[in-house]
Amino acid sequence: MKFKRSERLVDMTNYLLNRPHTLVPLTFFAKRYNSAKSSISEDLGIVKQAFQQRGIGLVETVPGASGGAKFTPYILKEAADQFIGEVSDILNDNDRYLPGGYVYMSDILGQPEKLKTIGRIIATQYLFQKVDAVLTVATRGIPVAEASATYLNVPLVIARHDSQITEGSTVSVNYVSASSQEVKRMTISKRSLQPGSNVLIVDDFLRGGGTISGLTSLIDEFDCHLVGSTVFVETDDPGHRRVTDFTSLLKMDIKDDQIEIKPGNYAQKIFGSTN
Amino acid sequence: MKFKRSERLVDMTNYLLNRPHTLVPLTFFAKRYNSAKSSISEDLGIVKQAFQQRGIGLVETVPGASGGAKFTPYILKEAADQFIGEVSDILNDNDRYLPGGYVYMSDILGQPEKLKTIGRIIATQYLFQKVDAVLTVATRGIPVAEASATYLNVPLVIARHDSQITEGSTVSVNYVSASSQEVKRMTISKRSLQPGSNVLIVDDFLRGGGTISGLTSLIDEFDCHLVGSTVFVETDDPGHRRVTDFTSLLKMDIKDDQIEIKPGNYAQKIFGSTN
Repeated sequence: MKFKRSERLVDMTNYLLNRPHTLVPLTFFAKRYNSAKSSISEDLGIVKQAFQQRGIGLVETVPGASGGAKFTPYILKEAADQFIGEVSDILNDNDRYLPGGYVYMSDILGQPEKLKTIGRIIATQYLFQKVDAVLTVATRGIPVAEASATYLNVPLVIARHDSQITEGSTVSVNYVSASSQEVKRMTISKRSLQPGSNVLIVDDFLRGGGTISGLTSLIDEFDCHLVGSTVFVETDDPGHRRVTDFTSLLKMDIKDDQIEIKPGNYAQKIFGSTN
Repeated sequence: MKFKRSERLVDMTNYLLNRPHTLVPLTFFAKRYNSAKSSISEDLGIVKQAFQQRGIGLVETVPGASGGAKFTPYILKEAADQFIGEVSDILNDNDRYLPGGYVYMSDILGQPEKLKTIGRIIATQYLFQKVDAVLTVATRGIPVAEASATYLNVPLVIARHDSQITEGSTVSVNYVSASSQEVKRMTISKRSLQPGSNVLIVDDFLRGGGTISGLTSLIDEFDCHLVGSTVFVETDDPGHRRVTDFTSLLKMDIKDDQIEIKPGNYAQKIFGSTN
């Protein structure tokens, strides 16, 4: 059975979108659609152009017998800015302010369409870097980290604060929560990271940086390399922050008990420009 | 600027895939591509047919001036069976067996492509039911629940065992862990569920059913309705299971210290047939 170009384009788009950062051989598509490689090459050219025009991502085509296509999702700065602006507006709501300088945002971090955009923004920064895993710590960072791992198409590794009989042998580190000055402990399974892996840290919130320091220690314990750290929201620097190099999508300023959410440093860190 | 059909098809596919269960008006696409509604209708017909042929999902087109298109993702039984078979093979590995009758599976629940398929399978059962939120409890159930919520395109709500200053007012319930006979407590933010919502429970593991009972009590506390409960793996019924109506993708049998992972009851529950 032969497939029309229009049908091939729809299926090919779906296939590539579901497998970011994966080289799909031309021969695979040729067999899937019972079509000549030359037709498949033309199809991929169309997909590539449409993805680029719509800011969906990059489709790289590798020519030759062993060639294929690889989809790398990204987001354009304009789309990222618009999204971050919208989320800031939602969060800048007196009803969301909680005692102790917190803002209720669990609903935002539970909405699939928002999580997708957050994941795309985070993944865009590390587009051309080698990332082997995304590391986060339970609980609230997990959805953001999973969304980022999905767009980078690498495993998600979750450190936990409690002991976990379902993880086998584990590695733990102690760290100091900079906000509470409490010593905490986090644990991951020994099997969850290969030595030498390139690891991206993703978390929901950065205050004193204790959690990210702890995650960095875990990366060291596994002889892995830190690619970078990205958080959804950073707060005002409390003055004794343990982490200086990170990316934030949003920034929370607290002045005279007034909370203001504004864009974080992502424009500079991801797109190399300021707003 | 006009867009060619081929470009429209690629962009439309991406647009619909990213917004499951959402009616996108014809007028939206007509404006987006500067094209006549009749052309858009034809495009949607092509997308619909390709999605159906490839088992990607259903595209419903609503005719008329206020009409549009709605994408409902599903997975076909053959694809689900093949995936579950592959995952069983991966999990049936002596190296994965842990003391106490556990199996290491955190790596599977961290791989984006596997999570997507798991989410699609779970969402397929509730395709035509009204689901307003997916509820799970920290920690290991979160990735599976997020993947399911993504395909249903509804908010993910996470109950936690610890107290949480970032959640505002909360509601807690006590429940008995059937495996440990311990009384535990789980908490969610008061803001996270609207009364009357239809809630789907998704978790990674079902042993005695204590966790699902606890989540069901939370749903009752919020005057919400339970749509169903789906777990990634159920174990042998320990004999005093608190939950009888649930769907499992996999089943873990333990006999004479031998562990075997096999398909759960999903074929019957989701596709109405046995394997």
